[in-house]
Amino acid sequence: MKLKVLQDILGANEAIARRNREVLDKHGILAVNIMSSPGAGKTSLIQQTISRLRAKVRIAVIEGDIASTVDADKVSQMGIPVVQINTAGGCHLDANMTENALNNLPLNDVALLLIENVGNLVCPAEFALGEHKRAMLLSLPEGDDKPHKYPLMFTEADIVLVNKMDLLPYLDFDIPAFMETVTGLNPRAKILRVSCKTGDGLGEWCSWLEAEIARRKNAPTSVSSQ
Amino acid sequence: MKLKVLQDILGANEAIARRNREVLDKHGILAVNIMSSPGAGKTSLIQQTISRLRAKVRIAVIEGDIASTVDADKVSQMGIPVVQINTAGGCHLDANMTENALNNLPLNDVALLLIENVGNLVCPAEFALGEHKRAMLLSLPEGDDKPHKYPLMFTEADIVLVNKMDLLPYLDFDIPAFMETVTGLNPRAKILRVSCKTGDGLGEWCSWLEAEIARRKNAPTSVSSQ
Repeated sequence: MKLKVLQDILGANEAIARRNREVLDKHGILAVNIMSSPGAGKTSLIQQTISRLRAKVRIAVIEGDIASTVDADKVSQMGIPVVQINTAGGCHLDANMTENALNNLPLNDVALLLIENVGNLVCPAEFALGEHKRAMLLSLPEGDDKPHKYPLMFTEADIVLVNKMDLLPYLDFDIPAFMETVTGLNPRAKILRVSCKTGDGLGEWCSWLEAEIARRKNAPTSVSSQ
Repeated sequence: MKLKVLQDILGANEAIARRNREVLDKHGILAVNIMSSPGAGKTSLIQQTISRLRAKVRIAVIEGDIASTVDADKVSQMGIPVVQINTAGGCHLDANMTENALNNLPLNDVALLLIENVGNLVCPAEFALGEHKRAMLLSLPEGDDKPHKYPLMFTEADIVLVNKMDLLPYLDFDIPAFMETVTGLNPRAKILRVSCKTGDGLGEWCSWLEAEIARRKNAPTSVSSQ
């Protein structure tokens, strides 16, 4: 019974996610779903990305949180269009919430949409939002055993950012073992080592985003562009 | 429709949780549900607690994870009875899983049951397992804004352990602001600053556990003891 209900919810979510994807494609927008544990650095990554790319790329942001507008306030203060979704207890964003947010963003003036999911290493990976790419952050203090314990998130990611590299001297984190585990779970995932505090490694992240934006603009699409 | 289903699930969970609580009370066991984000230090806390209390208190452990037996292996190597629950994708333990685990532990020889929930700051707080007390860990690298974004977990906790205090010199974490927010959400919560790496502050945690165990033994119970 529980499984049946879950299938219905996931089926309905997939249908709305496809609709979101069509809207995004129609506007030539690259949408990236950013996922991690609470406090791994998603908002810092978004702030750093805005600082580095805003001169070249029109950016918008969707912020997902159980409660509060702490993160959206930070982005809004940078002068970037942002919608805060409060899930009121829900542990992940879904396609329906994302659709409501898309309806409140100036899509004609956006090339890159960064979606910050609720901080959670489990459920967000199960719910498509309509995004083109999935980025996940794993911060060093969380430990190098996380891919063993939360495999789905690592399996589903297109790019894995190992964040808080500045703390490496103070932690017991086996980088080679972690890389090997992630590559074993997901050989196609790109893995970058970054610090959203110092900025180290973020040039490569921004280059990856720019290449994906360019690829999307040049790709043939079945939906006519505006 | 979705809400209706959730109520049914939670209702069924509550009934099983009450049954678990009766089993625990019958055996005079204090059960503590330990919750946190992934990588905040739950397993380290359990290992440290075992080392400090094993000479005085008979301990058993239930380990909850999406996948793997990494944590249960660590506890088992210490010679402590442990059951690993793999939730196969589920983002929290529930009362039914806990009941199955209880059936596989030597309850007649246990005074303290430590239950490590799935690493998740959201859903575990919604599902009672039959525990007497809820302990939550917040590790410094997660940031001092977490109570604003994940209020339920902080509201439901009997004791909040602020872990990884050894990393304070390398982080921007406002301890007084954090304490004030938590106390505002939950005035009855005890807050301890600890490091499961260095052991700092864990004496007070163990004293709290011992006092709770003693209180439970002396408390009148409606269920006859064996």
